[in-house]
Amino acid sequence: MDDLRATLGRRLDSYRAALFDFLRIPSVSARSEHAADTRRAAEWVRNRMEGSGLEASILETGGHPVALGEWRGAGPDAPTLLIYGHYDVQPPEPLDLWTSPPFEPQVRDGRIYARGAADDKGQLFLHLAALDVMLETRGTLPVNVVVVAEGEEEVGSPNLLPFLERHRDRLAADAVVISDSAMFAPGLPSVLFSLRGLAYTEIRVRSAASDLHSGAYGGPVPNAGTELARILATFHDDRGRIQVPGFYDAVVEWDDETRKGISELPFSEEDFRGGVGARGLTGEAGYTVLERLWIRPTCEVNGLLSGYTGEGAKTVLPAEAMAKVSFRLVPDQDPSTIVEQVRKHVAEVASPSVSVEVVELHGGNPWRARLEGPYFEAARGALQDAFGVEPVLTGEGGSIPIVSDFERVLQAPAILLGFALPGANMHAPDEWFPEAHLEKGIHTLLAFMERVGNPGD
Amino acid sequence: MDDLRATLGRRLDSYRAALFDFLRIPSVSARSEHAADTRRAAEWVRNRMEGSGLEASILETGGHPVALGEWRGAGPDAPTLLIYGHYDVQPPEPLDLWTSPPFEPQVRDGRIYARGAADDKGQLFLHLAALDVMLETRGTLPVNVVVVAEGEEEVGSPNLLPFLERHRDRLAADAVVISDSAMFAPGLPSVLFSLRGLAYTEIRVRSAASDLHSGAYGGPVPNAGTELARILATFHDDRGRIQVPGFYDAVVEWDDETRKGISELPFSEEDFRGGVGARGLTGEAGYTVLERLWIRPTCEVNGLLSGYTGEGAKTVLPAEAMAKVSFRLVPDQDPSTIVEQVRKHVAEVASPSVSVEVVELHGGNPWRARLEGPYFEAARGALQDAFGVEPVLTGEGGSIPIVSDFERVLQAPAILLGFALPGANMHAPDEWFPEAHLEKGIHTLLAFMERVGNPGD
Repeated sequence: MDDLRATLGRRLDSYRAALFDFLRIPSVSARSEHAADTRRAAEWVRNRMEGSGLEASILETGGHPVALGEWRGAGPDAPTLLIYGHYDVQPPEPLDLWTSPPFEPQVRDGRIYARGAADDKGQLFLHLAALDVMLETRGTLPVNVVVVAEGEEEVGSPNLLPFLERHRDRLAADAVVISDSAMFAPGLPSVLFSLRGLAYTEIRVRSAASDLHSGAYGGPVPNAGTELARILATFHDDRGRIQVPGFYDAVVEWDDETRKGISELPFSEEDFRGGVGARGLTGEAGYTVLERLWIRPTCEVNGLLSGYTGEGAKTVLPAEAMAKVSFRLVPDQDPSTIVEQVRKHVAEVASPSVSVEVVELHGGNPWRARLEGPYFEAARGALQDAFGVEPVLTGEGGSIPIVSDFERVLQAPAILLGFALPGANMHAPDEWFPEAHLEKGIHTLLAFMERVGNPGD
Repeated sequence: MDDLRATLGRRLDSYRAALFDFLRIPSVSARSEHAADTRRAAEWVRNRMEGSGLEASILETGGHPVALGEWRGAGPDAPTLLIYGHYDVQPPEPLDLWTSPPFEPQVRDGRIYARGAADDKGQLFLHLAALDVMLETRGTLPVNVVVVAEGEEEVGSPNLLPFLERHRDRLAADAVVISDSAMFAPGLPSVLFSLRGLAYTEIRVRSAASDLHSGAYGGPVPNAGTELARILATFHDDRGRIQVPGFYDAVVEWDDETRKGISELPFSEEDFRGGVGARGLTGEAGYTVLERLWIRPTCEVNGLLSGYTGEGAKTVLPAEAMAKVSFRLVPDQDPSTIVEQVRKHVAEVASPSVSVEVVELHGGNPWRARLEGPYFEAARGALQDAFGVEPVLTGEGGSIPIVSDFERVLQAPAILLGFALPGANMHAPDEWFPEAHLEKGIHTLLAFMERVGNPGD
């Protein structure tokens, strides 16, 4: 590793400069006026990979293209890593809440501020730089590598699964490496052991042909708002358990070791409560706060709308009411099955005097890591090499549906190695990435390739 | 009565023309751009009363003025009637749903279409015309009369109670007569025996300092939307009873005769259900539909708002949720007491992990008629005289808070004699009043004065 670290040290300033160039491209995938910028970011990635010695190309999809990089010089007996990242970014608005402009990277207090610094240009770049260091230093890699840099992650990756399926053979790999998440805490590197999935529904209640006067009709006529509230109240019992029949059938109970690991993480429930500004915490009895966040499913009201919502009093008896209700899922719950169970439950509890519809809006599978095997061990070792601390295992309450897509289509384990820090403002103003993690992240990824490619060393 | 009916017959066309002039004035009290029109309507009423021989004046209030008419020629031993009505109207919007323009009265199929035709210019005019017929025919009235025509009923009568209190002595009366409601059915005149009151609240839940990501925070962090739904679901039990402790304490159980009268009214619950377009009816077990509408209190959700309510899926964990919740009250429930009970109930059932506030937005007392005495008997007799049918007693699910104000301040019973018909679109496009009720209404009010003024006849 000494040769690699020497190169890295020598080239770090030029890598930082290159990353800043990358961050200056406003590749906002959601905005059609940034379509050319988004493509420009794909080309930037392609050129960068080409410059390092990979075969690089732009592959079209139904939307923004994929920048694909390949290096297969390690031979058919060496393992192949697929590195996934995305070059598109969230819209930067509201602009007036940024301390420095979102597409003009600036370092302040050891943080690189820019849209995409953490999510995900900065972390994708770590991989590009690690490949560059290794090829620059040795002219070869210990593993074969395929880089898939997509441009639609921030709009739900609508074309990624078809892309994976179409190029299944070309993308064949032994492991998928993704850096698009955060470490548990500063100085405490982590490997993700799970992601939650999602089943997102809209529940619509109709109680009459039109809104009515609540005095002239109130009493015998059903009220869509009242009825919706009653339906929503059936979703939890008073210990925070979700009451949809069958809901927990597929939920994996984690082993004692994992739960013990979670309990030993440096985490203050009181600080967490204070941080979100809640009077108290809530959730499923029998589980800690981190367990409720990571390994237990939820049912959340995301939105409510009915009747009159303006200022003052209007005596309307609303004919319609709507709730957005989503469920964070854990392994091995299946989004479609959950939506069917919810549909059945709502039909069961709804009053026969109203019409109720449950519409499925969005879904994604939960994921859990295989907490063993050479890639997992290599990831832990590499993090320890770079940070000097044994990494912890953490879960993630959010969802990255493409992770399970990769595993399913490629039949290869995913390793999630995140280098951002908590509070990175990934989808908010003043997004940042720790400047020191530029070197530490590249170091980790170099060590990871070394460990995977030379398991005997 | 023959002399009076002869005059009425002779002058009917000119009365219709005068009413149309009145209806042409766009006296929309809610709209400042119609302030001059609203005052013009007050002056129209004053002039009309003056022309009939009353002492008439415009009395200023904090808002739109009161047109006051007085005739005290019957002497101190004769009874005094206070006639209340309002010359202001609801906004006419949406204009494109009117078949003919709202301020250009038109007769179609026996109905006078115009904003205010039923609510309340048309019905106030019946009184003005009756006074005119009597004074024109006989030069005298059998009773003393005070007419109070206000211009702020459609904006909640904010200045009426202060007006009544300030002019308490001048307005002293033996009975208050109000025509601002509907008959039970065509050909079936009715006297109101009750009005419901109102306690209107807004319930606000706050669960965190700001909206959060439902994946990253869902589980341990309370959800304002979920919690609001849970609170709302505690308001009713599964038999439609309101579960706020003490809520029914002051509710009057009506006598068997009244309930029998209600049960004998020509009313089809199935037609009612079909009319509102509900799949089924609901409400408090043990009471008929009309009883639920008239003599039983309700709790209605009037509005719901929380989190994301646009198209598609947004995974927000909402920090705030709001419900407008109102209670229709029945005699002898008191709005302030009910709001206090609701406040206590909500505090009791709310999770300690959230903050909840119950704000009182609006209130009004319920009212019940004294179903006996000379004024009540005179009203029944007068309706029978004019319509040839014995009138029925009906309730009203809506609220007219000023009715109990009049009774309390003047210590005189209110008689509610309505001549509109069901479906009159009082606050909607194509408001109408039955053309035939112009004559029948005036006839009724003439007969009423005769019966009150000459009880021995």
